[in-house]
Amino acid sequence: MEHVNVDEEPSATLVYRVERQVFDEEYVSSQLLHTKERTPKTIGQRVAEQFRCSSEKAKSVVLSLLPILSWLPSYPVKEYLFGDIVSGLSTGVMQLPQGLAYALLAAVPPVYGLYSSFYPVLLYTFFGTSRHISIGTFAVISLMIGGVAVREAPDSMFPLNGTNVTGLVDIDARDARRVQVAVALTTLVGLIQLFLGILRFGFVAIYLTEPLVRGFTTAAAVHVCVSQLKYFFGVKTKRFGGPLSVVYSLIAVFKDITSTNITTLIVGLVCTVFLYGVKDINERFKKKLPIPIPGEIIVVIVSTGVSYGMSLSENYQVDIVGHIPAGLQPPTIPDFSVLPNLVADAVAIAIVGFSMGISLAKIFALKYGYSVDGNQELIALGLCNFASSFFQTFAITSSMSRSLVQESTGGKTQIAGLLSSLLVLLVIVAIGFVFQPLPQTVLAAIIMVNLLGMFKQVRDIPALWRTSKIELTIWVVAFVASVLLGLDYGLLVAIGFALLTVIYRTQSPKSVILGQISDTGLYCDTDEYEEAAECSGIKIFHSNSSIYFANSDLYVNSLKEKTGVDPTQLLAERKSQQKRAKTKSGEKKDSSHSPAQKKNAVAKLDVELGVAHEVLDEAQKQVDALSNGQVAEAQAESDSEEARFLQPLCPVHSIILDFTPVNFMDSVGAKAIKAIIKEYATINVRVVLAGCNRTLLSDLRTLQFFSEPVTPDIIFPTIHDAVLHCKHRGGCRSCPAVE
Amino acid sequence: MEHVNVDEEPSATLVYRVERQVFDEEYVSSQLLHTKERTPKTIGQRVAEQFRCSSEKAKSVVLSLLPILSWLPSYPVKEYLFGDIVSGLSTGVMQLPQGLAYALLAAVPPVYGLYSSFYPVLLYTFFGTSRHISIGTFAVISLMIGGVAVREAPDSMFPLNGTNVTGLVDIDARDARRVQVAVALTTLVGLIQLFLGILRFGFVAIYLTEPLVRGFTTAAAVHVCVSQLKYFFGVKTKRFGGPLSVVYSLIAVFKDITSTNITTLIVGLVCTVFLYGVKDINERFKKKLPIPIPGEIIVVIVSTGVSYGMSLSENYQVDIVGHIPAGLQPPTIPDFSVLPNLVADAVAIAIVGFSMGISLAKIFALKYGYSVDGNQELIALGLCNFASSFFQTFAITSSMSRSLVQESTGGKTQIAGLLSSLLVLLVIVAIGFVFQPLPQTVLAAIIMVNLLGMFKQVRDIPALWRTSKIELTIWVVAFVASVLLGLDYGLLVAIGFALLTVIYRTQSPKSVILGQISDTGLYCDTDEYEEAAECSGIKIFHSNSSIYFANSDLYVNSLKEKTGVDPTQLLAERKSQQKRAKTKSGEKKDSSHSPAQKKNAVAKLDVELGVAHEVLDEAQKQVDALSNGQVAEAQAESDSEEARFLQPLCPVHSIILDFTPVNFMDSVGAKAIKAIIKEYATINVRVVLAGCNRTLLSDLRTLQFFSEPVTPDIIFPTIHDAVLHCKHRGGCRSCPAVE
Repeated sequence: MEHVNVDEEPSATLVYRVERQVFDEEYVSSQLLHTKERTPKTIGQRVAEQFRCSSEKAKSVVLSLLPILSWLPSYPVKEYLFGDIVSGLSTGVMQLPQGLAYALLAAVPPVYGLYSSFYPVLLYTFFGTSRHISIGTFAVISLMIGGVAVREAPDSMFPLNGTNVTGLVDIDARDARRVQVAVALTTLVGLIQLFLGILRFGFVAIYLTEPLVRGFTTAAAVHVCVSQLKYFFGVKTKRFGGPLSVVYSLIAVFKDITSTNITTLIVGLVCTVFLYGVKDINERFKKKLPIPIPGEIIVVIVSTGVSYGMSLSENYQVDIVGHIPAGLQPPTIPDFSVLPNLVADAVAIAIVGFSMGISLAKIFALKYGYSVDGNQELIALGLCNFASSFFQTFAITSSMSRSLVQESTGGKTQIAGLLSSLLVLLVIVAIGFVFQPLPQTVLAAIIMVNLLGMFKQVRDIPALWRTSKIELTIWVVAFVASVLLGLDYGLLVAIGFALLTVIYRTQSPKSVILGQISDTGLYCDTDEYEEAAECSGIKIFHSNSSIYFANSDLYVNSLKEKTGVDPTQLLAERKSQQKRAKTKSGEKKDSSHSPAQKKNAVAKLDVELGVAHEVLDEAQKQVDALSNGQVAEAQAESDSEEARFLQPLCPVHSIILDFTPVNFMDSVGAKAIKAIIKEYATINVRVVLAGCNRTLLSDLRTLQFFSEPVTPDIIFPTIHDAVLHCKHRGGCRSCPAVE
Repeated sequence: MEHVNVDEEPSATLVYRVERQVFDEEYVSSQLLHTKERTPKTIGQRVAEQFRCSSEKAKSVVLSLLPILSWLPSYPVKEYLFGDIVSGLSTGVMQLPQGLAYALLAAVPPVYGLYSSFYPVLLYTFFGTSRHISIGTFAVISLMIGGVAVREAPDSMFPLNGTNVTGLVDIDARDARRVQVAVALTTLVGLIQLFLGILRFGFVAIYLTEPLVRGFTTAAAVHVCVSQLKYFFGVKTKRFGGPLSVVYSLIAVFKDITSTNITTLIVGLVCTVFLYGVKDINERFKKKLPIPIPGEIIVVIVSTGVSYGMSLSENYQVDIVGHIPAGLQPPTIPDFSVLPNLVADAVAIAIVGFSMGISLAKIFALKYGYSVDGNQELIALGLCNFASSFFQTFAITSSMSRSLVQESTGGKTQIAGLLSSLLVLLVIVAIGFVFQPLPQTVLAAIIMVNLLGMFKQVRDIPALWRTSKIELTIWVVAFVASVLLGLDYGLLVAIGFALLTVIYRTQSPKSVILGQISDTGLYCDTDEYEEAAECSGIKIFHSNSSIYFANSDLYVNSLKEKTGVDPTQLLAERKSQQKRAKTKSGEKKDSSHSPAQKKNAVAKLDVELGVAHEVLDEAQKQVDALSNGQVAEAQAESDSEEARFLQPLCPVHSIILDFTPVNFMDSVGAKAIKAIIKEYATINVRVVLAGCNRTLLSDLRTLQFFSEPVTPDIIFPTIHDAVLHCKHRGGCRSCPAVE
């Protein structure tokens, strides 16, 4: 068996050999293990450590706050620069149309999308830790901002002065107000992100589990898509917000479908088909193309030309982008008066934005073997949003589609991002006005085609159905809640639901009876595996969950059900048996009453005091003493009360609770286990605990779990220890019963 | 060692002996274990089973719905009857004053408290499964009803007609309306309880964990106490409801403290002192007294007499109970128009009421060895509330104080409850009017003294501080939220918080590195215990939690921190080492470049493909082949890049993840573990999993966890198996490195 054929099947020849005495916790804690002496640090020492100042520490703080300082000095120009330039230009060319388009989603004039594609991108170069993500406008965030802007500055607030026609809106005043709201919201989002980052709260993103994010973003895609329909068809409906806005928007669009502007629709359709085709070609010939075909900018340029040439706006009433001011705007202080209404939205946007950014950043970091710092990313995003908002931008994060282009075209560092922002700057300053004739339907087409990836997430449903029903439920709840309640409440409901599934998992443990696989010391489910054999008289109960208030009752119930040993029931049966036996023996012969009654009294004591075995031992001694004189009599009536009393209430003498899956227990759980031990003691069944880990043991000690009847000698380090102990003990006990 | 001294120290002599080959999951699942064939039941069979009709089944359904049928026929008259009569009369004598007093809390005239002490108690005799609890009015529930009644029928709704004085209230109209509200609420509570019971939702009570209930009831005691102050001082302030009502009430009472009615205060104080004294005597001489002294009824009778004799109401303006109609009222249909406003309150009252009842019932059931059925209790309570509400009662549950009296005076069955309800009936029908002169301050005194037990729960705080900080937090949150926000919102917040603590526990696992206790096959914390020794080159990581979305990041981080092996960092170090070495060797001699570069290329491949060991094997072969010719050269420069490449990146060759505490994993967790395995493979560290239970394994299989690089041969049934395997493998691997 030993060390033969090492090269061919190494594990087959390795021998697992353990030979030692059976341990229980009493022995383990008093003899086997000795706690290491540790001098805990005083609070003073800890504070001193925390606040120790050194140039090294200062340097590392500066480096962590300004990551650019750590990589720019050693930037390998000839290796990286070319890739970064190509990547920067490709990404910049995408920033332009996306910036214009997502501004529509954010319910602000298109030029603000360009601003948002410049300032934050520039800032991120200095503060970001990811080398590959492309910061800028993002559909879901833009839509959330748009929802808030429309809610805070609805059409009805801006009636057109000087006319009596109702329904006409002072669009300039409305848009100015919406910009104010969007900018103030962005300031707040930035502040929240900064704040969370400084407090090292980067972990909040973990609550957005993947199925939740995917369900949520699919719902966002639905919202975006519905909100773009009106531009696509060229119908004029108001924008809805709040719960059920999707339904209202759809109804409004289809009510007005007769007023569809055919030219708009045709332009939109053509653009969509073209963009989709380009996207498809880019996917298909990914490896052959040096850089992806910039379909979006082509569409924008061509359609701007066509629109200008054919005067689509005047001749065909096609809605166009309209006035784009040249140059940048001076910094202004956001209007803080609206802030109180925006806190909840800002929190939602801050968290969603961050979680989108960090998840992308992590994917690239893993791929290229560097690390991103969640908290620094949060600080970077916060700074980008906060500082930029003074220059009239709306909130940004990283965009999947652009980041993929930035990476695939050879981008190695955020120099690419820097270049793309400079390209946007150039357009803003020099040639922004040329986009004025661009039809809005083209932007809608760009948005829609970009959403295709998100809609593909619906394919998660069958996949999740096969792998995990719980995660499927999270996906569906996130999707349905976000579609119907809006993205903000939807997110809240989805997070709450996702957390509840964790509780649910602890409440629906799988409970099984374990059996031994002979000669291995291993135990597994007797229902599932042929080889698992129960030891006679011993039930090993395993339930894969911790035990605490919300499942301790379930634990107890399933213990009774699975082991088939229910003390209450057995005691009731015994009582009725005793009663029947008493009546019977009373009828038969009144003379032989005294020994039977003595034993009944003992049995009663046994039940009432819960010190079953000691009493039983005594009873057995009495029986032994008596039996000499009454052997003949006792054998004559084979089903008499003596026999019934001597025979154990049930064939099980020991129950082993497998505590390996128990990670924590609260006082309710501890009480439940104690009650179980006491309850089973009344029917003379010993309950022992196996496989407690030492953390749990010390928790139980603080919970004062170890007092009568729970003593350290009922706790065993492994199931096998417990089984060996119970077998031995059971053997002793059952001897007289078997006779 | 074997079976010596069996009687003295049985466990010390037992031997744990296992000798077998080392198993991995590949062997276990293919060779060792065979799944049992089970023919799953068809849906048809299951439906048939579910709906099979038999006289036996019908009988058991009837018996479970009407538990009285199972115990009354076999009622042992001569054994039980005397105890039940004594107990019934003692309890009934308590029902009277408590019914009158708690009606004040429920903001309805006192007589409705008497009704509530009759009908439901009578009904519970038929439907209840507990033999010892005393159903009837209960302070917390009454207060919750009162809160709703006042909210729905505030004083301001009932200005007194015919006068111009503001602030005067048409008390009759107001009280009539409050009764309507309370009754409708009770109907709804009953319906909800019935509904939950029929759906077998009895488990909802488990969410009310003990610290939560105790914090909540202590808060309720504060509310009750504050609400009674005005009766105690005899000042007239309005009743507040909703958040911060405690603060408003206190302010209102102390503002008006100058108008205290001294007579009222004196009567109240005398009663309080007397009641407290009686309570104390009853506690102290529990065993000597045949029945507890009925202090409450004595106080009621004496003070009624005094009040009548001295005409306290007329002469001293002491508020008295006032008109008590004689006889019962005909059944009426509750006013359902208010129901929509009451749903949330009704749910809260239904759950609190049930959880109070069931927890008491379980305590007695455990003590006397019978079982109570949670769902049937819910149905019973629901029926009591629902049916009784047609007779103008308010919601009830069991009361701790009365139940203890019912049990201690010898009550054996609900015959005692029946008798107590009949006593109340007698009072209602015959002599109710005699209580008319009873001062309200006496009732306030009764309520306050009964609350003492609840206030004593404050002592939980130091006890919980010692045993469990988390449960202390639950207590405090439940208390503070319930005091400040009111009982309804407070309960909601407390339940939400209690559930979040479960999430928190999974997110703050204790992570340790395990070491072997030599020759035992046991592993424990190396930081904690002297005997735990790490095997060289192997790190065993243990974190006592399941792995899922909200903690997978934490798991990975603490793994890297505890093992001290961080692939990203090591790779970065290696890269910089390589770079330095390259520059150095380049300077030294350009001729010996080719083998070094070859190896660098291999190293790069190694990193990028993540198939570390195969590549390394190849590299080693190359090195072996090369070394013949270049031995001298290699030995000459001992710190050259070859040596640095050959020496493993870190002294650890294997990491074992102890999966025994992992009860479930979701797709996020599975991906995280997979990513870890891949990441460590890049630095040639093998990650294996030990101690997965079989339920988790089958979950992982559905999660499609087993695909490259995760194969069943990296999964071991125990840590010891994994250690033996890794030792063997590590030995093989490290041979060439050590040379």
